[in-house]
Amino acid sequence: MYRKEIKVLDCTIRDGGLMNNHKFDDDQVRRVFRAVNDSGIDYIELGYKADEKQFKREDFGPMKFCSEKDLERIVGNTEKKCKISVMADIGRFDPNDVIPASESYVDMMRVASYVKDIDKAIDLTNTLKAKGYEMTINLMAVSHARERELDEALEQIEKESGVDVVYLVDSFGALYSEQIAYLAKKYKSILKTREIGIHTHNNQQLAFANTIEAIINNINYLDGTIFGIGRAAGNCPMELLLGFLKNPKFNIRPILQVLESDFIKLRQDIEWGYTIPYMITGILDVHPRAAMKLRQSENKDDYLSFFEKLTSEAEI
Amino acid sequence: MYRKEIKVLDCTIRDGGLMNNHKFDDDQVRRVFRAVNDSGIDYIELGYKADEKQFKREDFGPMKFCSEKDLERIVGNTEKKCKISVMADIGRFDPNDVIPASESYVDMMRVASYVKDIDKAIDLTNTLKAKGYEMTINLMAVSHARERELDEALEQIEKESGVDVVYLVDSFGALYSEQIAYLAKKYKSILKTREIGIHTHNNQQLAFANTIEAIINNINYLDGTIFGIGRAAGNCPMELLLGFLKNPKFNIRPILQVLESDFIKLRQDIEWGYTIPYMITGILDVHPRAAMKLRQSENKDDYLSFFEKLTSEAEI
Repeated sequence: MYRKEIKVLDCTIRDGGLMNNHKFDDDQVRRVFRAVNDSGIDYIELGYKADEKQFKREDFGPMKFCSEKDLERIVGNTEKKCKISVMADIGRFDPNDVIPASESYVDMMRVASYVKDIDKAIDLTNTLKAKGYEMTINLMAVSHARERELDEALEQIEKESGVDVVYLVDSFGALYSEQIAYLAKKYKSILKTREIGIHTHNNQQLAFANTIEAIINNINYLDGTIFGIGRAAGNCPMELLLGFLKNPKFNIRPILQVLESDFIKLRQDIEWGYTIPYMITGILDVHPRAAMKLRQSENKDDYLSFFEKLTSEAEI
Repeated sequence: MYRKEIKVLDCTIRDGGLMNNHKFDDDQVRRVFRAVNDSGIDYIELGYKADEKQFKREDFGPMKFCSEKDLERIVGNTEKKCKISVMADIGRFDPNDVIPASESYVDMMRVASYVKDIDKAIDLTNTLKAKGYEMTINLMAVSHARERELDEALEQIEKESGVDVVYLVDSFGALYSEQIAYLAKKYKSILKTREIGIHTHNNQQLAFANTIEAIINNINYLDGTIFGIGRAAGNCPMELLLGFLKNPKFNIRPILQVLESDFIKLRQDIEWGYTIPYMITGILDVHPRAAMKLRQSENKDDYLSFFEKLTSEAEI
């Protein structure tokens, strides 16, 4: 698949950071940054904008905060070919403190929002857009959204926001390709003047397949992570996505190299990816938090009782 | 997806046996057999028909041979609700030695064949069909078949064989869903009087997605294995397939139970599933043997040099 409008975003460090409170050391973040930068990937998302009055530095790694100084240590003297993205969560920082994009290492900010919070997301997006940042709204947990409310939120974004890209986010890894196709067509039909993006989770081993389905349906912004790292079952594996895309600007070799140097060890230290409890929450279309709790417990492989518990809760 | 014609075949013990020379103990095979039997799955494939003059008993587990005595030890007093399948490889046993289906535990035999060996496959299939067995031909490595030769083989099967089901087999885990859809339509259009089956490999994490694509394209015989066990990157995970199929006859619980009791331990003893070397052979559409050799070596995680080696070989 070669379509010049396609943009790939690597969120290895950002989504992976959800599994270890962003406690990557600077060297590791630098190695990932350089691999992504050399592979022709368009954007790298390194972490979050978070207010140091709300969150203590000592409880998290630097990429929870992504201050200019934090980013400077990562970029260093590297010639910056990919753009840098951070997530900007509603209420977790003061947008008035944000410096103009022209003075920042950050090129893009992404606002994650549930459908019900769309007014706040549009307001925050417009404030940051005025400072010169490329902006996205990532509509989370779309598998739980009521259809009429989703339609209204999309119409509101199209009318009221200056956002560049709206992401379809399968937070629970619950959607099948047919549903991705249906939603992609909906987003395209309502958001006539915006680009659409896709962010998938791998609970049912469909993160890559659903990203391909999104490409087929004219979605141009594609999220992936190296070795699929990310919360719970993780995300679309970047190595598979680069293997699929035929644009010669992409080069899989730097990704293979950092996989080899960093990700085998990392996977031994922190768990992510397909496991049966995450598969179960995916099939049941619920948040993975119960499965994450199970995986931290002594009963981490008690699949049947976990299934019985979740299905009997679902029946209430 | 509920279509009453859909039949699910579990080949956990057969395809998994390729990773350990079929050295499962009888107790383990019995636990898998009972789980599959209780879950509403239509067929279980336990192993191979292999000639004891060609292969020594002491080099393999019993499911390499699947004699009536071997199968009797597995079925025991269990009420047999699922049918039993074995693979019957061309030249590995004498079809004249096979007893009639009415006297055997075996209900179905599957003949794996490359397109070029289709004459032999049809001959073997017809001999065994005459003994009363349900028969399939599994056309391997279809991603390497020349299109005209594939068309001719399918026409020949339709005209000359008594086979019940013809399987589309993505041996190298190289096919994307669009290609599965294209081939499924081809198989359906030529094999007008036969059922079609699908057997996928998970090199690109597409085994489940491609099985769904096959279902959408009216393929009715679906192969899966518990936790995706199978050679190299493994197969379509049965637990995902049962989560997708809506026919109330299927029950995922016995599969979750045997996953818990047996497959976590088994995965520690033998390796299968998505790894970067298998991903690389999948993307390059080549046999996984080079990756299997790498995974047995000290350099099992040298991804970049493996990629460079395979791509420079491919250029010659």
